Amino acid sequence: MKALTFDVFGTVVDWRGSILREGRALARARELEVDWGAFADAWRAGYRREMDRVGSGELPWTNVDRLHRLVLDRLVVRFGLRGLGEPEKEHLNRVWHRLRAWPDSVRGLRRLKRRFLVATLSNGNVSLLADMARHCGLPWDVVLSAELFRHYKPDREVYQGAVTLLDLEPPEVMMVAAHKEDLAAARGAGLRTAFVRRPLEHGPGAKPDLAADPRFDVCCDDLLELADRLGA
Amino acid sequence: MKALTFDVFGTVVDWRGSILREGRALARARELEVDWGAFADAWRAGYRREMDRVGSGELPWTNVDRLHRLVLDRLVVRFGLRGLGEPEKEHLNRVWHRLRAWPDSVRGLRRLKRRFLVATLSNGNVSLLADMARHCGLPWDVVLSAELFRHYKPDREVYQGAVTLLDLEPPEVMMVAAHKEDLAAARGAGLRTAFVRRPLEHGPGAKPDLAADPRFDVCCDDLLELADRLGA
Repeated sequence: MKALTFDVFGTVVDWRGSILREGRALARARELEVDWGAFADAWRAGYRREMDRVGSGELPWTNVDRLHRLVLDRLVVRFGLRGLGEPEKEHLNRVWHRLRAWPDSVRGLRRLKRRFLVATLSNGNVSLLADMARHCGLPWDVVLSAELFRHYKPDREVYQGAVTLLDLEPPEVMMVAAHKEDLAAARGAGLRTAFVRRPLEHGPGAKPDLAADPRFDVCCDDLLELADRLGA
Repeated sequence: MKALTFDVFGTVVDWRGSILREGRALARARELEVDWGAFADAWRAGYRREMDRVGSGELPWTNVDRLHRLVLDRLVVRFGLRGLGEPEKEHLNRVWHRLRAWPDSVRGLRRLKRRFLVATLSNGNVSLLADMARHCGLPWDVVLSAELFRHYKPDREVYQGAVTLLDLEPPEVMMVAAHKEDLAAARGAGLRTAFVRRPLEHGPGAKPDLAADPRFDVCCDDLLELADRLGA
């Protein structure tokens, strides 16, 4: 095994907690009353629906920044944020460039990087992933994105495209993700797989599927445990 | 200005000196007599000719690892290296993944990275650039390559493609290179430009064009001077 490719939203960074924190700061500054948990969940769900429309061919290729903005423009109405000006909306849309890493992510990646090439393999666009890496100090060797292949995960083209760009064979690459659908698709393309449990991805009230799954090569609780398991 | 994109071969790493060093070690181990300076120059020149054949459409898209190998297979005959086995030839071909940085490169990039996003924008393929970065400790934020656009520099598509992936406007990006042709093309695509003098790129006997050129925004002697000039 030579390279690890990482899902990012939810696996490496805490999107929901980051949106809550920025949203609450915005609400204080503008004296707004917003349920930011519901807002973050609706944003994420809306983005997934728009991404599915790209996948089905109903929408032409559209990157994640623009999908986020499509959804945000609806949420601004629904959650009573109509008073925000264009620069504020654009700044809010780019909260996804400023997401915070889970506490173990930077240290885990630094250890894993000593032994393996570490790359993103995210649906997030390249500039989003690059800004986030600079913001959090994520030490990626390479930023790989669905944007390079004009296909979103779990389309096979994304996993195959990554393996090709890394000039490796599929079993030389391990996909690391907190989402079983992503890992199942990576496994279908011949990659190895590591499931990382992120019980708080969807907030303290959610009950995500955290069960160990024999289809995957590794199941672990964070990136430090992954480094232990891989001898890094 | 938000991002710097770097030519790599010759600008950030010393391809000729690196090939000489590895070649001489190989020659000692195998008791060969080879003029490694001539070998390195012929390899580089052959690669440029093959790249031009891709540019003209005479060859289909072929990445730099494969172009290097096409040329190497001829040089092995011409320079009397026929005794090398396939694993040795493949290892030698990948010397381009193990090139050494010029002495100022890592420190210069670290300084520049504090203030700007730093990316490769090289004709080298993604896996070559990623291996080289790991080998040398080059702290790229993003690895951008002609391979992503299936066009080689100085084709306009490469500069435009980089600007698009970085989600910036052309004047927000500065191309940094030791080669005026590269910079002239970047300038034609609207990017800012920095010329870095690398008098030893082609060896101590060569006389490259090092004259300051008023077309370019900055002319400097190394990446530390570039950092000074850009206030990084």
